[in-house]
Amino acid sequence: MTEGSGGRIGVGMVGHAFMGAVHSHAWRTAHRFFDLPVTPELAVLGGRDLARTKAAAAKFGWTSVQTDWRELVNSPDVQIVDICTPGDTHCEIAIAALAAGKHVMCEKPLANTVEEAEAMTAAAEAAKERGVRSMVAFNYRRVPAVAYARKLIEAGRLGEIRHVRALYLQDWLSDENAPMTWRLRKETAGSGALGDLGAHIVDATQYLVGDLLSGVSAITNTFVTKRPDESGEQVDDVTVDDAAVFIGRFGNGALATYEATRFALGRKNGMSVEINGSLGSLKFEFESMNELWFFDGANGAEEAGFRRILVTEDTHPYVGAWWPPGHLLGYEHTFTHEVVDFVRAIHTGIDPAPSFADGLQVQRVLGAVESSAANGSAWTEIQA
Amino acid sequence: MTEGSGGRIGVGMVGHAFMGAVHSHAWRTAHRFFDLPVTPELAVLGGRDLARTKAAAAKFGWTSVQTDWRELVNSPDVQIVDICTPGDTHCEIAIAALAAGKHVMCEKPLANTVEEAEAMTAAAEAAKERGVRSMVAFNYRRVPAVAYARKLIEAGRLGEIRHVRALYLQDWLSDENAPMTWRLRKETAGSGALGDLGAHIVDATQYLVGDLLSGVSAITNTFVTKRPDESGEQVDDVTVDDAAVFIGRFGNGALATYEATRFALGRKNGMSVEINGSLGSLKFEFESMNELWFFDGANGAEEAGFRRILVTEDTHPYVGAWWPPGHLLGYEHTFTHEVVDFVRAIHTGIDPAPSFADGLQVQRVLGAVESSAANGSAWTEIQA
Amino acid sequence: MTEGSGGRIGVGMVGHAFMGAVHSHAWRTAHRFFDLPVTPELAVLGGRDLARTKAAAAKFGWTSVQTDWRELVNSPDVQIVDICTPGDTHCEIAIAALAAGKHVMCEKPLANTVEEAEAMTAAAEAAKERGVRSMVAFNYRRVPAVAYARKLIEAGRLGEIRHVRALYLQDWLSDENAPMTWRLRKETAGSGALGDLGAHIVDATQYLVGDLLSGVSAITNTFVTKRPDESGEQVDDVTVDDAAVFIGRFGNGALATYEATRFALGRKNGMSVEINGSLGSLKFEFESMNELWFFDGANGAEEAGFRRILVTEDTHPYVGAWWPPGHLLGYEHTFTHEVVDFVRAIHTGIDPAPSFADGLQVQRVLGAVESSAANGSAWTEIQA
Amino acid sequence: MTEGSGGRIGVGMVGHAFMGAVHSHAWRTAHRFFDLPVTPELAVLGGRDLARTKAAAAKFGWTSVQTDWRELVNSPDVQIVDICTPGDTHCEIAIAALAAGKHVMCEKPLANTVEEAEAMTAAAEAAKERGVRSMVAFNYRRVPAVAYARKLIEAGRLGEIRHVRALYLQDWLSDENAPMTWRLRKETAGSGALGDLGAHIVDATQYLVGDLLSGVSAITNTFVTKRPDESGEQVDDVTVDDAAVFIGRFGNGALATYEATRFALGRKNGMSVEINGSLGSLKFEFESMNELWFFDGANGAEEAGFRRILVTEDTHPYVGAWWPPGHLLGYEHTFTHEVVDFVRAIHTGIDPAPSFADGLQVQRVLGAVESSAANGSAWTEIQA
Repeated sequence: MTEGSGGRIGVGMVGHAFMGAVHSHAWRTAHRFFDLPVTPELAVLGGRDLARTKAAAAKFGWTSVQTDWRELVNSPDVQIVDICTPGDTHCEIAIAALAAGKHVMCEKPLANTVEEAEAMTAAAEAAKERGVRSMVAFNYRRVPAVAYARKLIEAGRLGEIRHVRALYLQDWLSDENAPMTWRLRKETAGSGALGDLGAHIVDATQYLVGDLLSGVSAITNTFVTKRPDESGEQVDDVTVDDAAVFIGRFGNGALATYEATRFALGRKNGMSVEINGSLGSLKFEFESMNELWFFDGANGAEEAGFRRILVTEDTHPYVGAWWPPGHLLGYEHTFTHEVVDFVRAIHTGIDPAPSFADGLQVQRVLGAVESSAANGSAWTEIQA
Repeated sequence: MTEGSGGRIGVGMVGHAFMGAVHSHAWRTAHRFFDLPVTPELAVLGGRDLARTKAAAAKFGWTSVQTDWRELVNSPDVQIVDICTPGDTHCEIAIAALAAGKHVMCEKPLANTVEEAEAMTAAAEAAKERGVRSMVAFNYRRVPAVAYARKLIEAGRLGEIRHVRALYLQDWLSDENAPMTWRLRKETAGSGALGDLGAHIVDATQYLVGDLLSGVSAITNTFVTKRPDESGEQVDDVTVDDAAVFIGRFGNGALATYEATRFALGRKNGMSVEINGSLGSLKFEFESMNELWFFDGANGAEEAGFRRILVTEDTHPYVGAWWPPGHLLGYEHTFTHEVVDFVRAIHTGIDPAPSFADGLQVQRVLGAVESSAANGSAWTEIQA
Repeated sequence: MTEGSGGRIGVGMVGHAFMGAVHSHAWRTAHRFFDLPVTPELAVLGGRDLARTKAAAAKFGWTSVQTDWRELVNSPDVQIVDICTPGDTHCEIAIAALAAGKHVMCEKPLANTVEEAEAMTAAAEAAKERGVRSMVAFNYRRVPAVAYARKLIEAGRLGEIRHVRALYLQDWLSDENAPMTWRLRKETAGSGALGDLGAHIVDATQYLVGDLLSGVSAITNTFVTKRPDESGEQVDDVTVDDAAVFIGRFGNGALATYEATRFALGRKNGMSVEINGSLGSLKFEFESMNELWFFDGANGAEEAGFRRILVTEDTHPYVGAWWPPGHLLGYEHTFTHEVVDFVRAIHTGIDPAPSFADGLQVQRVLGAVESSAANGSAWTEIQA
Repeated sequence: MTEGSGGRIGVGMVGHAFMGAVHSHAWRTAHRFFDLPVTPELAVLGGRDLARTKAAAAKFGWTSVQTDWRELVNSPDVQIVDICTPGDTHCEIAIAALAAGKHVMCEKPLANTVEEAEAMTAAAEAAKERGVRSMVAFNYRRVPAVAYARKLIEAGRLGEIRHVRALYLQDWLSDENAPMTWRLRKETAGSGALGDLGAHIVDATQYLVGDLLSGVSAITNTFVTKRPDESGEQVDDVTVDDAAVFIGRFGNGALATYEATRFALGRKNGMSVEINGSLGSLKFEFESMNELWFFDGANGAEEAGFRRILVTEDTHPYVGAWWPPGHLLGYEHTFTHEVVDFVRAIHTGIDPAPSFADGLQVQRVLGAVESSAANGSAWTEIQA
């Protein structure tokens, strides 16, 4: 039985910080706007600290709490396990959940290392045989403008893809006195801007292009190597990258450039992608996430120009469930769309995307970036 | 007793179309992100058709339904009445609810006529003496960028205000074959673009400037006077304006221009305001609702420029409850913020804004616009 | 003989301030980029002060100078008289020049009063019979993006025009201590922002729409009524408007809004026009003068969006004479284009546009605006 | 004698295609707007074909022509030699001109190879001892917005520079049937997008940052390897790169990304630079060349935002000579500014920038890019 009884499907979510808040919203909200075959039930919230987890559960609307994630994973009330913890814990939780027959949604990056990602993917492949579904939560795929961009590319509107340029620019570490967090420690986060931000743009560009990177050449850098720790009383080492820049080639020959940084002062959540093909071009910038810019070569040189499509028409992906044209969607909608697609996939028995295998491949790209950066920017091929 | 028992406050909402959907979301969501003194309970949903109301209640999360709004208003489960119906019904429902001691949130425009708005305001003033609160739902005040703009103006950053220019441009009637709706009939909607769109920009500009319009000169127009009715089998008369343009003066001497239309092809929800003062200027455009453009004269001519402030910092109004910088909010958040402010106002016993009196004043401006348009654009003063 | 001998045509220009500098550039430059049937010769520069006029002639490249404009007008070296003086002198100079059989280019606004403009137009009509040409220099028509917009509208791409909104926003008077100039005195300038800026947008919108305004309702205002005079030692009265806002109707029924001001802090030369039709919309903003934004309804709702056409292709009006795509043109190019069109019109014997009659009609619109503003914004019809 | 007699300085220009047209305009125009110590005289135009050179001279305003550039270089009428020919001829002409005691302005890239650039630089250094000046014409330094950006960075407003991202995107080769030109042949052009476009952004970023690149890792690509030749009858080999992408480090540790391509469909002259520092950020985009976007961290998180500075104030570099605020400059103004600075430098006896040594260093960067691309993107250091 892969769904809960009575038209409901129980969710157990591990972690209740930033990602926990937005995932909770998505689980609560999806069926209020979309027709779902089963209704998600916020059954169990997992966290290490009982009091804080209880407070979060009350705030976010979870029925019960668990401080032992293994209990959560094995709870009969739980059919879906949603992993919102730091990357170092993804592997163990996901494998246990899949083993327990639970569908798994896992935050990105899939894992902190390629090895963990491989183990998780193997487990997911095995589970799939038993009808158990899994998905890695690259939410930017579910921005309507991004999903619509994919449709245009898939329909051939860009022709042969020649250039991909992707940025993910933030600035919250620009201040040298910004304190340490788990995100700045290799043991918890795996990497810095690379895994946190770079993973998103690697996934988004591969998804959009419909092809994979074949190799990269990279530089990473840590601009500020010591920061006040959380207590503010000591200084601690930053053990991850602050920024990563890399160039690469897609299998089809397109050239690509990437930059992920937390030091681009003034850029708050500046995730952007531009793709140039032989017939058209597309630009997307998350800080204006309801817009897609389309240059359609078919318009002819005299009339052509980048066209600002407000992706808020009811025929655009996901949008029909929301508001009239011009009434904007926000960040959390992307997670709600993930829930919609995941629950539908579970019900219809198809595999949701991006799969753990997709997440593993992104991990391999990130690994190649780190390897290239460690080897004088040497060209580093990515295992298919 | 103005709140429900047990830390909960019951809401009864009349109407379950577009506005009903977004209000439901707000009632469900506000306490998940904001600390509220009492938790809204989606107690009763009112609608004329039982089956459709039941379906909406299930979808939106309401506990029970009522086809007779008088029953809803008088239900002991209801402490707040939320009016989401067409404008011709606002007056009767609101007055009955206030008489029953229920707090009232009423969609805009407050009423279809000045007379109705006056009666509602009188009822609200009387109810206030008994601790009963009321608010008209001009949601654009609760866009964080708009609320922040008001803070900057209130702090004197713009100096003396000299120019106000406001647009509310949509295009859904641009197609001559778009069918009739209640919004195109004077008996239900009162007016067309004027009341639907113009009301928003009149309220928003008066709120931002902190002053009232003293007079206007106007033109209104109906470009397409006959349209297919809802059945598609007959043609029906459009009895409201398709567009209204007007110029006016604020009490403080500022010049203002307004345009509200449903015929601006390509403009989906183009609500925009620009204000120029002696020390600075501000621009806001709803289709980029997370941005506020600020020209600060204090920067000096050489360095000054319109500055795109992404109003997503945790110190910006309402934003701290949501996501990190650069993670955008959307249309529905403005309604969630209304609920937050309304519930807090009820609890602390202060009067929420905009009041019914504010709504009445907007109605007087709309009335003056109609009167001027009917009298050869003659200058028409607005009663204070 | 309406041209000079030897393939050259002599120009006599009266005035050598801002407009004189840019017109000189145009006369010097036009034949360097465009194929002209005759080459303009900068023959005589007129100015009241001999020393300053000589200095200007040396700087701008004029062969000789004249302090008496009547001598200039009658000089055998002069076939074209270019009038770049304040508006109060246009009438007398233009009529004398036309009487002397000289082609006349006259800066805008054509005159300071409707009466003067009528006299000038009568003289131009009479001169036309004798093969003498005249043009009023509304240079914005010769921005390639504006000329291209006209082509799109002429081709029917916008369908039936429903809305016109035009702004001309500057801020150089925003500072209350900015000193007096001839532009702030009624006797020299005729009006303030209205004639200086409003004239441009009235002409540009009528040109673009291909139709005339039939009536207006207006407000004008002088925000700062006293300013330091040029000496800085006394205070003088500002006797013109600082700003004018007006609404109007085109003959074809389109609604229009206009605003001209020198008090829009942060707007440097913010001339902008948007036109909405039943099939498409166009937006132009002079501060990005190489761009035209086109919303083509034919793209269908899902794909449509305002398209930023960079009007720098060699098939765009005037552009083929200049640089490759994406290499921008600037302000002075519009004057060079005027010279090109004027010289070609003289040679081929067709009447250049805009004619003095066009300038007169703009003057009538400005007169109607002033009249409406003086009469409580009463609707004021414009004589055809 | 390094200047001509009588307050004039004779210019001999070799080449009269695109660059010749814009340089001619600059030589004709500079003294009309700027106060120059000596006035440039368009003395001799050099070209291989007599008839075409004569036609160009007449069109552009040159006094005489020469088909032998050696004669031009040695003409007593020529004090400045301006080299506007393809890159393969720069070295020989420049060295001969310097040897003849003529000041040299040379189009970019300085040469097609590092070796040639070294020889030219040695000649320039030697000539400098004799008071002979030379400059390489990286015109983008003289965009007012770029020059102003440099001033802000020089004043420390950006703090420590951490990120540089530069693009130069064009699309004129996107069409596979666009024909061959000398720009697509290695023997004439040296390289493709790299030398033509990449050279500009390498120079501009090093100029802005005030530091040099220390190493790069690169990919280059030729998307379309065969094209119709100029006759249209045969197919010819493209022997240069269509695109180059590279990452690098500045001496001060900043990370940099670069992309130069002629295949970015929709990007016409998309030269853009963004620089992020610890205190502020700047963005510039040539397609909006009158704007500079400045994020000033000193505004504080709540008020900060990228500020669109319209670089048209009279205190901005070069602007005071032109028009009032908001009246845009265009592409050719950058060349006029070069002439102004070059002539002034000759007169005052200071060395103009960028020098041939600067051009050589850019050539070394381009060489390192090519070398890295040929060696599996291996990190390649740049000789200081």
